[in-house]
Amino acid sequence: MEWKQRTIYCGQVSKELVGQEVTLNGWVQKRRDLGGVIFIDLRDREGLVQVVFNPEYNKEAWEIADKARSEYVLSVTGKVVERAPEAVNPKLKTGEIEVHIHTITILNEAKTPAFPIEDDLDVDEQIRLKYRYLDLRRPEMQRNFILRSKAAKAFRDFLDSNGFLEVETPMLTKSTPEGARDYLVPSRVHPGEFYALPQSPQLFKQLLMVSGFERYYQIVRCFRDEDLRADRQPEFTQVDIETSFLSMEDLLPMMEKMVAHVFKQTIGVDVPTPFPRLTYAEAMARYGSDKPDVRFGMELVDVSDLVANSGFKVFASVVENGGQVKAINAKGCGHYSRKEADDLGKFASRYGAKGLAWIGFKDGEVKGPIAKFFTEAEMQAMKERLEVADGDLLLFVADKPKVVADALGALRSKLGAELGLIDESKFAFLWVVDFPLVEWDEDAQRYVALHHPFTRPKDEDLHLFETDPSKMRAQAYDMVLNGYELGGGSMRIFKRDVQEKMFKILGHSPEDAREKFGFLLDAFEYGTPPHGGIALGLDRLIMLLAGRNNLREVIAFPKTASASDLMVNAPGTVEEAQLKDLHIASIAEKEDGEEA
Amino acid sequence: MEWKQRTIYCGQVSKELVGQEVTLNGWVQKRRDLGGVIFIDLRDREGLVQVVFNPEYNKEAWEIADKARSEYVLSVTGKVVERAPEAVNPKLKTGEIEVHIHTITILNEAKTPAFPIEDDLDVDEQIRLKYRYLDLRRPEMQRNFILRSKAAKAFRDFLDSNGFLEVETPMLTKSTPEGARDYLVPSRVHPGEFYALPQSPQLFKQLLMVSGFERYYQIVRCFRDEDLRADRQPEFTQVDIETSFLSMEDLLPMMEKMVAHVFKQTIGVDVPTPFPRLTYAEAMARYGSDKPDVRFGMELVDVSDLVANSGFKVFASVVENGGQVKAINAKGCGHYSRKEADDLGKFASRYGAKGLAWIGFKDGEVKGPIAKFFTEAEMQAMKERLEVADGDLLLFVADKPKVVADALGALRSKLGAELGLIDESKFAFLWVVDFPLVEWDEDAQRYVALHHPFTRPKDEDLHLFETDPSKMRAQAYDMVLNGYELGGGSMRIFKRDVQEKMFKILGHSPEDAREKFGFLLDAFEYGTPPHGGIALGLDRLIMLLAGRNNLREVIAFPKTASASDLMVNAPGTVEEAQLKDLHIASIAEKEDGEEA
Repeated sequence: MEWKQRTIYCGQVSKELVGQEVTLNGWVQKRRDLGGVIFIDLRDREGLVQVVFNPEYNKEAWEIADKARSEYVLSVTGKVVERAPEAVNPKLKTGEIEVHIHTITILNEAKTPAFPIEDDLDVDEQIRLKYRYLDLRRPEMQRNFILRSKAAKAFRDFLDSNGFLEVETPMLTKSTPEGARDYLVPSRVHPGEFYALPQSPQLFKQLLMVSGFERYYQIVRCFRDEDLRADRQPEFTQVDIETSFLSMEDLLPMMEKMVAHVFKQTIGVDVPTPFPRLTYAEAMARYGSDKPDVRFGMELVDVSDLVANSGFKVFASVVENGGQVKAINAKGCGHYSRKEADDLGKFASRYGAKGLAWIGFKDGEVKGPIAKFFTEAEMQAMKERLEVADGDLLLFVADKPKVVADALGALRSKLGAELGLIDESKFAFLWVVDFPLVEWDEDAQRYVALHHPFTRPKDEDLHLFETDPSKMRAQAYDMVLNGYELGGGSMRIFKRDVQEKMFKILGHSPEDAREKFGFLLDAFEYGTPPHGGIALGLDRLIMLLAGRNNLREVIAFPKTASASDLMVNAPGTVEEAQLKDLHIASIAEKEDGEEA
Repeated sequence: MEWKQRTIYCGQVSKELVGQEVTLNGWVQKRRDLGGVIFIDLRDREGLVQVVFNPEYNKEAWEIADKARSEYVLSVTGKVVERAPEAVNPKLKTGEIEVHIHTITILNEAKTPAFPIEDDLDVDEQIRLKYRYLDLRRPEMQRNFILRSKAAKAFRDFLDSNGFLEVETPMLTKSTPEGARDYLVPSRVHPGEFYALPQSPQLFKQLLMVSGFERYYQIVRCFRDEDLRADRQPEFTQVDIETSFLSMEDLLPMMEKMVAHVFKQTIGVDVPTPFPRLTYAEAMARYGSDKPDVRFGMELVDVSDLVANSGFKVFASVVENGGQVKAINAKGCGHYSRKEADDLGKFASRYGAKGLAWIGFKDGEVKGPIAKFFTEAEMQAMKERLEVADGDLLLFVADKPKVVADALGALRSKLGAELGLIDESKFAFLWVVDFPLVEWDEDAQRYVALHHPFTRPKDEDLHLFETDPSKMRAQAYDMVLNGYELGGGSMRIFKRDVQEKMFKILGHSPEDAREKFGFLLDAFEYGTPPHGGIALGLDRLIMLLAGRNNLREVIAFPKTASASDLMVNAPGTVEEAQLKDLHIASIAEKEDGEEA
């Protein structure tokens, strides 16, 4: 079979080509027959163009075109012609022209697809995933993956021009002692032994620094066998970076420039740098979150001092017992009914709040069951501190700081979205820094590392190892965008004495540490440079770049929430002999109603 | 701890910087004390430079430098100075200058490494793999991975500028019905079911063509659980490419340009294009290999016609029974002893040859046990056809064509290397084309696909489906470099009638085919464009670019021949609870002397 190759993509035929001959290859989006003339919208990955068949241009071509149906694959050749003014389609990028065809080859036929190949599809996602090859044909999906490809290229160009080397690390590696669940891979050659798929190349990238590669990057697949949510996938891609000799103050500006470069190259948006920074303490205090969406206000305001001695004993006793009372001001929600306020309370209780108190201000009146407990002065002080105007609603949580932050932080996010406070065109980047190095684990009665045991403490906090480790801050940082954690990283401990102190407060004996982190500690003995890095979640970044809210829109062949691929039907059963080769047996109980 | 960041890499300090101040970060390669002056060769990934400490420059720095030992990590600042003529080191890129240091920080100390950090190391590879982080510090290893990073970038730049989109395909997918062994991954959520790690993204890349992405690429990890050789790894990386609407005559020149771009960008070599092409038949006939090393001659020459009626009955009867007799001329080996010739025979027997006949020409005499069976005319004809000069040795194999090709092809490679016939500076690319579409499987009594069942036959051979499938040639191609298969691919079947005929000759019923290739065949019903692609083995390409002969030299953390990672000790045992979570049990018999 012979056909002519395109000279230009459908979506790129423009007025400048009027009078010229072009060849197009693509799919039939739509076919209409108007008074013996056939109009076809031909589609390829770059867009649509109208091609016209008229017996007057070429009778044979017109006859062949008459057989074409939706999603047929065509190669057509003809002349670009300016449309008559009344025929211009301003909604179409190529709407000012059309192509008068004299030669056509039907390259392939098509059955009617399970859903139309168009944007804003209203079809169950399961169907889209089963017929993913058709779903991916839709223009919005094509745009997402063109964007993704561009973004990866932009990352690489930036990193390459900044002296980073791409180094590939193994996928078949060793199960890690801590952290999320590993995917395991049985070994045929080593009976009873297993590889693990990497949760990240953390150890390898630190070893590459020990090896002197200085600046490493990799856009790399990682695996976590965790229960999935909308923004989690069992396999995900991260932009993984590690550098030697740089301090945090060197690395962070470089990473800002990198992300700004990617945004500029992909969606043409100028991201202002430097990014604002919030300490972890400040982020939790003001937004109740370590990944705050700072596109809107409605900050958490501490009123503990104002209510400590008030007549509302619930608040007073929480403060007395070392807790805190905080409020947010839901602007313009003063008209909320008791039912509406109670619903917010139910929402808050999911985040651990025992109750959500509220005071409404509407038409000069003060509403809500707790209002009566406060003196006029107390009320006035709260109104001032929370900048209350008539029509506002104050929402209070009184509890331990963590519960207050979780509940009010979640409420703030919910109300921010519902009240339309968020400028969706905005990209609000920030760094969250000064994370605690360790936190106290009540169950284990010991400190645990907030990031990992190789995270470097701040130099000025080193003296706290002996006195109060819980006050130590880490040289760790998260990059946050619009309420999402894009990624994070840290400077790593590279000095032996610091590492030993760290293990000591984590309750690891030297033997213990060696057992768990053996070869990495060995490696660190041979001249380890100061080093640190970051990992950014590529899937999530692309999701935000594309203005989506579901990772599956930016992963070509994603898994469902039950970690299934509905198109290829993975996972699936295998032959008994395959398992035997791998020295394993299935111990699955076959039962009806097994989770799908 | 504070230190100064480098202003330049050690290996890049040049005469142009004389008089200027530089800061360097790096490792101590060597430290000498000459008359109270300390000379350190400081190393980073770009090379070495000599830094000098003299109490006259700065006493404190000199005192600190006195503590530095091999592989200590330093940050030093000082002035670039031209060396005295007698102190110039012409072997060192930076040998014309040195840096007089006034400030030094010892960033880290180091134990003495298990082997010296230098090129041309004579150390057991097992030790190198165990201490891979030290092995990777050696300059030749650093160069290999800088090269690898550059090569990947060059591939991407070329593909990007030719309209290819990088699309990521899943790693957790489904076990394929045929081909090499899959690595399996048990599922926690789906008891008794398994994912498989991909042997290649073949199905996904074809589906991306169905989706209309037109030009796809990915530099992607693939997995094969096969028994390993020096040039195999359980996980390997391929440059995976698929295109729509292009014919083979469009794709192959594009791929040549791509590879030429990579060679130019990485090692500065101009690769001439277009690559020569050999048909499979010709490659087998002339070189006894479908991946011939054409950097030297010593081609296989058919002498069947000359010996068919000769007095040497072994040859005559082979020809009579449909076999062939071929010879190669080992130039200058006429002096080989009977023992040496017999050793070659033993080598040939490993490739299935029942015997290796030989005739030597030395000082006007004709040697060898079979010489006497030929008439003068027969001998003369052979000498002419094989261009025999005095001092040459003819080596004959008489057998079925496949055995002749295998045995003489292997002998040719061996002798080419041993006799120094190969110009190691040369890169001899070629395409092998016109592979048979199918071959007859005696055991199964049916045809099997030589590549895979989606490989498109040549248009002019389509009529042979009904008459003689074994004569059909595929639109398939291998890219060969210096005797290595760099990769291969094919145009794929995209028309339903052709696919049905293909399945028919392979003995698959339509139900059979659907069971095996279900969703792909479904996908093909919805408007599949003509498409085809290629996959190149990146590891092997880098190996050849770097002038190495072992894949492990160009993979940062490789596996041994028994698929082990000696540094991290993978695979390894896991907790019983982990297996239980995955609904599997180990059935390994624990025995001593288990293969390591």
